[in-house]
Amino acid sequence: MPDTETPEYPQIIKGASFLLAWRLEGKKVLLIGGGLVASGRLYYLLEAGAHVTVVSPRKRLHPETAYRIDVSNPQDIIYLDRDYVGPEEDELNVADYDMVLTAIDEVGLSRRVCIACREARVPVNVADVPPECDFYFGSQLRRGPLQIMVSTSGRGPKIASLIRKQIEASLPEDVEEAIDSVGKLRAELRQRAPGTGGKLGQKRMEWMIGICDAWRLDELGSMTPEVRRHLLDEGWNKNGKVLSARDVGMKSGVSGWWTDAKTKVVNTLAGGNAQLLQAGIVGFLLGAAIPGSIYAATLYQKRR
Amino acid sequence: MPDTETPEYPQIIKGASFLLAWRLEGKKVLLIGGGLVASGRLYYLLEAGAHVTVVSPRKRLHPETAYRIDVSNPQDIIYLDRDYVGPEEDELNVADYDMVLTAIDEVGLSRRVCIACREARVPVNVADVPPECDFYFGSQLRRGPLQIMVSTSGRGPKIASLIRKQIEASLPEDVEEAIDSVGKLRAELRQRAPGTGGKLGQKRMEWMIGICDAWRLDELGSMTPEVRRHLLDEGWNKNGKVLSARDVGMKSGVSGWWTDAKTKVVNTLAGGNAQLLQAGIVGFLLGAAIPGSIYAATLYQKRR
Repeated sequence: MPDTETPEYPQIIKGASFLLAWRLEGKKVLLIGGGLVASGRLYYLLEAGAHVTVVSPRKRLHPETAYRIDVSNPQDIIYLDRDYVGPEEDELNVADYDMVLTAIDEVGLSRRVCIACREARVPVNVADVPPECDFYFGSQLRRGPLQIMVSTSGRGPKIASLIRKQIEASLPEDVEEAIDSVGKLRAELRQRAPGTGGKLGQKRMEWMIGICDAWRLDELGSMTPEVRRHLLDEGWNKNGKVLSARDVGMKSGVSGWWTDAKTKVVNTLAGGNAQLLQAGIVGFLLGAAIPGSIYAATLYQKRR
Repeated sequence: MPDTETPEYPQIIKGASFLLAWRLEGKKVLLIGGGLVASGRLYYLLEAGAHVTVVSPRKRLHPETAYRIDVSNPQDIIYLDRDYVGPEEDELNVADYDMVLTAIDEVGLSRRVCIACREARVPVNVADVPPECDFYFGSQLRRGPLQIMVSTSGRGPKIASLIRKQIEASLPEDVEEAIDSVGKLRAELRQRAPGTGGKLGQKRMEWMIGICDAWRLDELGSMTPEVRRHLLDEGWNKNGKVLSARDVGMKSGVSGWWTDAKTKVVNTLAGGNAQLLQAGIVGFLLGAAIPGSIYAATLYQKRR
């Protein structure tokens, strides 16, 4: 007989994609096509450190693709100034690559590439033909070590990009620095308490989580090497205590808060973050209403 | 001689991951392990519609893994109550799967799984052993058709989750409805102007981008079937004109704006979105300052 207790686990709602951060550093990627769509693919492939072979006649290259080919290191891009003829006919063999992307207008040719890739078990994306894809792309943003992808599983690329822009505007300015601080603190903690797995690994993880919970993103962003040492000396070394920004004497509270808020107002006015502006204006109206009504009441009393 | 013009294309900064939305619907996935980490993997695999084989002794199952196994359809999860013995020894062959994930403590066994997967060209992720991974996971959120992933390429899972929470709090409430509206409008546009590729495809795409630019997310969210028909009849059909929410007589401007702002204030107080709260408070202080000082000035004058 099954248990009658109601578990609190979220229900499964199918229809999602499986979001991944694929590692392409030093991997061989075949990019068939060189137009506008290909130029976007190429940009992200190069940022990921892939070694890309681009096959497309020069006359059909988007200016950005041509530019990347011109300026890049030959190990990053191998360029073939010709049409790709097909998975059986072409001297390039899809099985020699770690990933294949097509961005060409010939749907029939794309389909054949897809079939060949499936047989060779090479991950493949065919631009604009969703059923022929092992994976989709989303709208992305990157700030150093931070990457964010917004996906609508092909339902609306433009709306994904609207949402991505809104997220971009709402990110704290020092988010990169915050990630760097946490990365450095983590590396220093590992030096101090080396070893993998087991109870020590668990304790290290819990301490790092404690720090992330106790520090705001902006506080993490301005964590100096001295502060990190202090956290380890006076915190980790003393029974794994978690010290906050206030504990280590960092200027926080109202002054940090006020600077942050001022920055937000300036950003809001400059960047048009409607949500923050709204919150500000609603606050303004509420703020004006209270002393305003006292003033009105005083005037009224005076007249009587 | 190369051109001397300075191109405006962003410079490549290596070190990124290649973010993807992988399609797993109906795909076979082998999940080795059943503990806490495995339970998280399993959740996302099931949401993506994968058919998962879980290998782990029942006594080591996390309660959530056990729960998923108990309640799920047998085609979604095949459960083997035993240890996985190794890529050569086990009767399960990694090459029979579309993806393999391990979440076990034995690093040696994980490495052997990884090597076998690489040979069979099966995408593989080994929890906690980054070099053995074809891909990483990030911190994710889903709202119906919308999925967002925050990745720090393994630099800080906890900070990725802090940023994800902040994004979650800043998303407009009706973001799902907005995506649905755009999806429906797009489908209806395709019915009205069928065909793939070429100039028509381009024109359709530009019109959709125009709509997304002209409508705010909250307006898109409350777009009715009648409004969509109106946009097509009086917009697309009349030289591809792009009508705004105001053009179709939707209540927008201050009233919609006010509702939206009120919702934000409530959400802010409930969910602790510090940025919005800050903006609100700064607005409040500014709002209070102006009538407040007039009042003070009046009092001062009265005394003189």
